[in-house]
Amino acid sequence: MAFKIGLLGLGTVGTGTAQILLSPTGRYPLLHEIEIYRVGVRSLDKPRAVQLPPEIMTTDLEAIVTDPEIDIVVEVLGGLEPARSLILKAIAHGKHIVTANKAVISRYGPEIFTAAEEAGVYVLLEAAVAGGIPVIQPLKQSLGVNRIRSITGIVNGTTNYILTRMQNEGGEFGDILVDAQKLGYAEADPTADVDGLDAADKIAILASIAFAGRIKLPEVHCEGIRQVSAADITYAQKLGFVIKLLAVAKREETALTAESLESEMLQVRVHPTLVPQTHPLASINGVYNAILVEGDPLGQVMFFGPGAGSGPTASAVVSDIANIAAVLKTAGESHRLHSLLSCVHQHYCAIAPISELVTRFYARFLTKDRPGVIGQLGTCFGQHEVSLESIVQTGFRGELAEIVVVTHDVREGNFRQALEEIRALEGVDSIPSILRVL
Amino acid sequence: MAFKIGLLGLGTVGTGTAQILLSPTGRYPLLHEIEIYRVGVRSLDKPRAVQLPPEIMTTDLEAIVTDPEIDIVVEVLGGLEPARSLILKAIAHGKHIVTANKAVISRYGPEIFTAAEEAGVYVLLEAAVAGGIPVIQPLKQSLGVNRIRSITGIVNGTTNYILTRMQNEGGEFGDILVDAQKLGYAEADPTADVDGLDAADKIAILASIAFAGRIKLPEVHCEGIRQVSAADITYAQKLGFVIKLLAVAKREETALTAESLESEMLQVRVHPTLVPQTHPLASINGVYNAILVEGDPLGQVMFFGPGAGSGPTASAVVSDIANIAAVLKTAGESHRLHSLLSCVHQHYCAIAPISELVTRFYARFLTKDRPGVIGQLGTCFGQHEVSLESIVQTGFRGELAEIVVVTHDVREGNFRQALEEIRALEGVDSIPSILRVL
Repeated sequence: MAFKIGLLGLGTVGTGTAQILLSPTGRYPLLHEIEIYRVGVRSLDKPRAVQLPPEIMTTDLEAIVTDPEIDIVVEVLGGLEPARSLILKAIAHGKHIVTANKAVISRYGPEIFTAAEEAGVYVLLEAAVAGGIPVIQPLKQSLGVNRIRSITGIVNGTTNYILTRMQNEGGEFGDILVDAQKLGYAEADPTADVDGLDAADKIAILASIAFAGRIKLPEVHCEGIRQVSAADITYAQKLGFVIKLLAVAKREETALTAESLESEMLQVRVHPTLVPQTHPLASINGVYNAILVEGDPLGQVMFFGPGAGSGPTASAVVSDIANIAAVLKTAGESHRLHSLLSCVHQHYCAIAPISELVTRFYARFLTKDRPGVIGQLGTCFGQHEVSLESIVQTGFRGELAEIVVVTHDVREGNFRQALEEIRALEGVDSIPSILRVL
Repeated sequence: MAFKIGLLGLGTVGTGTAQILLSPTGRYPLLHEIEIYRVGVRSLDKPRAVQLPPEIMTTDLEAIVTDPEIDIVVEVLGGLEPARSLILKAIAHGKHIVTANKAVISRYGPEIFTAAEEAGVYVLLEAAVAGGIPVIQPLKQSLGVNRIRSITGIVNGTTNYILTRMQNEGGEFGDILVDAQKLGYAEADPTADVDGLDAADKIAILASIAFAGRIKLPEVHCEGIRQVSAADITYAQKLGFVIKLLAVAKREETALTAESLESEMLQVRVHPTLVPQTHPLASINGVYNAILVEGDPLGQVMFFGPGAGSGPTASAVVSDIANIAAVLKTAGESHRLHSLLSCVHQHYCAIAPISELVTRFYARFLTKDRPGVIGQLGTCFGQHEVSLESIVQTGFRGELAEIVVVTHDVREGNFRQALEEIRALEGVDSIPSILRVL
């Protein structure tokens, strides 16, 4: 065997990875040259869905990342520690890294990639974003001949599952979350998914690759789907939209000339969004993921598929292993890195504050049922240069009148200022929903 | 400049390719190391949309493919000759090849790849299938860690445009074809597109990569969309389907165990197909292309985007150039080829005859309006083991009754035999449409 793998973790993804590597027939012939050399687990006694020789299993993960025989360390532990430390130690020992760990990469990417560059090793992470969908590799090896304008993705299966069910069944977020948890589509602690944190990790990674700069995760604006109600989904539908949790990374429009690329600002954000029903992302339902990439001169391409699960994620992990093996064979003793696969950018992307975003908004108001309230809203928006596309009293909720507003493109800062004033109006009870429109 | 390009052809795709290479800022830094060294054109006097130094232009294409300075020959001439001869001569002179030429590759792939293997050069062809959508590279570098079950694509923009308009407007094929020709969406001679030949070229290429074997193009079963009528589109819609020209390459179901992979049979076929409205390919409209790949353990992934046009196709061409440049830098003096990018399979895939296909069918019959005809049809199908899902008299066309039949899964040979007998029935006037159901 030419290439020896040290596998850290034998959970869902690790098991799937081992299953592919142990049955190479009918796949890339190169997989015959890849050997699972050691496997690090928490417990040696746990029954496993995959048959591995007991002598290669160990609970000593440090021994794997420092083993001089091992070429590639595959980290599928998840979580921040010990994953981060093991990755860094493996790099220090000259191992190439394949990881599915979006949380570690989005937080410690700069530290890890700096170490990898010094050590002359690869860190590949196809499985960290959108499961089995090849998207990192196309960005690194195909799409970057374009000037990328934007990446817009549905990258969290749990929230897309919940929103799809809310749309199909008309139910409320809380009820469907509970049911999703029962069915295994949502975690017992659903925070990372439903509050958009998982999607933020992923869009930070995608933005970093697409725009060739580092991203500070705390600068990624992040809203989850807890505030989305059945009423919003119904009104959105009437207006010709579906509501999706989108992860967006976008060059500001002015930044597309060659001269201005240096000083460009990015938007990187996660939030529930009204998506036109005719948009390619509108029909992505259930646990599926999809990523739309726009570039010049390419136009739009979209990648669609399973965003999670043992088999799909393992497919991505093993494709990274195969790519490292292929390129190591090509480089031979020279140890020269492949410039499209390695990650060398050092600077941080400038991210525009969310208040500078220019977008359309949807907002839902509950007001006292009296004449003149719509006029007050309209006036208040006008004073802050918020131009309205529509303002409709949709009906009543108990004693209160419900009013839905859709704006034209406005600066988010202006819109928020208008909302502050509106909130203080005597006739306004509350603003239950504020959503952006794609 | 590290890498010198000889560009054969400065039409739509050649111009787009030059435009990307001449403005590398904001794209892969590697593009700064790629130089357009010579450009071969038919006429030096023709005005061009791209500014190139006159001294690099020549009408002597042979001089380009034999120029010892040139590293990579980019063939974007189209057509069979002189493209094929120039590619072979370039390979003989040790040049790597990037081509957008599906017709040459689908017909002369074996000759070209054998020559390339002997010469130790790459032949990359991302642009030959589905324009700007990265699909060849994901198949070569990601998805092949799976056992691929099937590839199902909408890979011809012209026919998808026509079918989409037929569906939206209710018009007939002939009228919309004429209009599409006026608008530039169909060629003056539309044969290659509307008769499915272009799609057959493309699915032969995709099948060859996905199933790692050569494909004999004449064995690809190919039907175009001329027989699809407005009536079929209407009935399909009522039954919950849209009609798409699909290109399909599929392992026979029995072939998925490791043992049987050696003796596997493939289906490779192009035909108009009833696609369930909920299927991901059903919503691919207009000139867009999409390719759905199914594999084990991945499940389904789909790639969607612009299937043609200067910018998208050039994006694919330049991504191939960049990949060759990156891997040549990595290999250095060793000249070792990257095993996932190069093409080494020699055997031919066994392709099952279309009569062995097991699929569902839709057929439309015109019959005399008399009692018992439906019974005769049903009896005749039954005698040939064709099990019916539905048989409905949909109405009248002039004096004739119109009957639409949808079958369960049947062997195509049995279905065709039943149709032969039905055609001979005294009560049957004609069978205007026979379509397969996905």
